[in-house]
Formats: sequence, structure tokens, C-alpha cells
Amino acid sequence: MYFHALIPFKPVNPKTRLSSILSQEEREEFARIMLGDVISAVRRTGCSATLLCTSAYDCRDALVAVRKEGLNEAINWALPQFHCPALIIMSDLPMVTPGGLQRVVSTKADMSIVPGLGGGTNVMFVKKPEDFHVEYYGFSFRRHLQIAEELGFSVEIIDSMRMSTDVDEPADLVELMIHGHGNAREWLYNNGFTLSIEDGRVKVLRNGAEIV
Amino acid sequence: MYFHALIPFKPVNPKTRLSSILSQEEREEFARIMLGDVISAVRRTGCSATLLCTSAYDCRDALVAVRKEGLNEAINWALPQFHCPALIIMSDLPMVTPGGLQRVVSTKADMSIVPGLGGGTNVMFVKKPEDFHVEYYGFSFRRHLQIAEELGFSVEIIDSMRMSTDVDEPADLVELMIHGHGNAREWLYNNGFTLSIEDGRVKVLRNGAEIV
Repeated sequence: MYFHALIPFKPVNPKTRLSSILSQEEREEFARIMLGDVISAVRRTGCSATLLCTSAYDCRDALVAVRKEGLNEAINWALPQFHCPALIIMSDLPMVTPGGLQRVVSTKADMSIVPGLGGGTNVMFVKKPEDFHVEYYGFSFRRHLQIAEELGFSVEIIDSMRMSTDVDEPADLVELMIHGHGNAREWLYNNGFTLSIEDGRVKVLRNGAEIV
Repeated sequence: MYFHALIPFKPVNPKTRLSSILSQEEREEFARIMLGDVISAVRRTGCSATLLCTSAYDCRDALVAVRKEGLNEAINWALPQFHCPALIIMSDLPMVTPGGLQRVVSTKADMSIVPGLGGGTNVMFVKKPEDFHVEYYGFSFRRHLQIAEELGFSVEIIDSMRMSTDVDEPADLVELMIHGHGNAREWLYNNGFTLSIEDGRVKVLRNGAEIV
């Protein structure tokens, strides 16, 4: 089945909740590399992608639309323009795999959704995107289920740790360093991050100092 | 395929990392109810279960062995006694579903494993348990992969948010309250816990006061 992916992306000063451990320049580089891992997984499912960027961004593996408005407005602007199923996926999911995305897009329901830890929405696949609209932020998982219900759309909820774990906070780096497989994980190891076991718990160190 | 489940359980003073929000009596009740949800999912896959309890415990839905030694010693005592595949599952996984367990036990590999968030091991399925031994605590996920490699066992890693999220700390209650379906979730709602959206984030309140 042909479908198109929408990936919102903020090139400048992204991932501010990682400010305590990464400089702005590092966060921008790390965000680009996580995005690259997501684009790679998306393309390996045979799908094309459009980035919805808050400012100019050069990407050779995807179309780019610069949209200055908010996340919801940008996605809701894009959704009716595709006359094919839409995959909406966040750019901070570097643990995503093509096999995981295959579970998402092969749903028999009208749409599928992967919740984020904490009540968010990390991945959605909507077969009739022209009728749908998104409402991210806060408890968006519940809100998206409500929107689906209002439209009479059947929903499959996909159970995936890899896609439910978005990289927002220092603590999220633990999972990426353990289970990651792509360039984002490698970037961490190349930039002084290591795992250590202390007091029976797995910790993240940078240049030997504990950060999580 | 017939298999047998081992479920370690601590009836007295369990889940001490929830002490800030639950009394000892409440933690014991909540732990029993989470265990009940796990046993229910295990039984619905057509499998029998033995609880490995640190003290006497009365359970009508499973066999009970009281083992005073540590977690690893108790499981390693039990593993060689079953001449069938073994499912080792923790009792604090109330979001587990029969469908999720089906993914675990239908592996084509010699064993399957569901990592816990933070480097632990939440569920393991081992087709030849008499050769295997467990080493829980710390970075047990990596250790169990190493043990499998030493034995020449092929391993499938199962990607499941529901089984990777064990209920240890107050923050874990958010996921259970959003995605739970069984008695543990109901117990929380019956005991004054609610979800609230504040500053764009989903919070857990008890009797109106924020706890996470």
C-alpha cells in the first residue's frame, strides 16, 4: 500500500529538555541525526516523506515544507493535501525499525496509533487523512482516540516500546543507548556518553560523570 | 505448545519505591492485584503457573512454592524442574495482555525476551529451561543475552511497551492509568487516584493532590 509520511522537525534550538547535558549546537546535531534514523526507517518501508520544518532545512532524503505556525496547524495544513494514507511520525524516535512501522501501516483498522509514554502520540497512521485532524500536546493520545471515535474510525493501538519511547529527557538516553541500532546511538557513544551499572541500576555517564 | 510460567512474588512489604504514595498495607494489596492481572493473562494463554513466593501466600489460580532465598536462586532452583518451555514473568506487569504473551511464546527462536525500561528483564521465554540460568538485577537484559550467547541459543527481542513498563515508581502509574485494562488500574481509580492535565503534561493526582 502506498502512503506518505509527515515528520515535523524543529532545526533550530530543538530538544530544550536536554539543555542540561547538551549545548544548543549539540542538540541541533543530535536532533538531525535522530531525524535521519527516522527517515531511514520510513524509507525502508517503501514510503516517501515530507518534513514539516519550523525553519529552512536542507534534506536530501525527503521533501521539505517550511511552516512557521504551530505543530498542529502545520500537520492539519498538510493532511488534506495527500490523497493517500498518511503516516505521522515524530522525529525523536530513533529506535524505530522498519518492522515496527510495518506493524503500524499494516493495520486492518481505519487508523493505528502508537502512544508515547506519558499520554502523548508518537506515531499515527490514518487511511483517510483528509477527514482527520490532529491535536498534539498534553493528553493527545486520548484526544486522538476521541477524534477517531467522532469520525467513526476504527483504531488499532500498537504496542511498541521502541516507538513509545521518544527522546526528550536525559533519562530517555538510557533506552536509546541500550536498544538503539542507528546513528543516534552511535552519536552518543562518539560524544562521550557511556552506560554504567551503579547500585544495581543502569546509569548514563558523559566523560565519566553521571548525568542520569 | 505447552509451557509453564514462573512468577516471583513478594507478599510482604513489596514495592517499597511506592512508599511515598502508598502505605505498606496498600502496597501489599496493590501488588496482589497486579499479580492477579498477570496470572489472568498467563492463564488465558492456556498455560499453568507457579508462584515463587518469599513467604506463605494463598493463591487459588496458581501453584505456590515458598522460597526464602533470593530471586535468582529461587528461579534457578525452579528452572530445571520443568521439562517443558518456561515463561518467566514479573508480577508487576499489570498491562500485559494475552496477545502480548502470545507474541512472546510463539517465537521461532530458542528463547524470547522482553526488556524492562532501564536495562532490566521483564519477561523471558526459554524453550530449554534446564540449560538456562537467570541473573536478575542491574543490567540483566544484557546479561541474559550473554547467557543465551554462551549457550548458543537464538534470541528474539520482543518490542512491547505494555510488557516493558513495570510498575515500580510513582511515575509508572501514569502508564497504568492510561493503558491498563484490568483490576490494577481499577484499584487505583477506586483508591482516589486520577489523571489530570497540567502545563500540557499528564499528571497523577491522589485525592486531588499531585503525586507525579
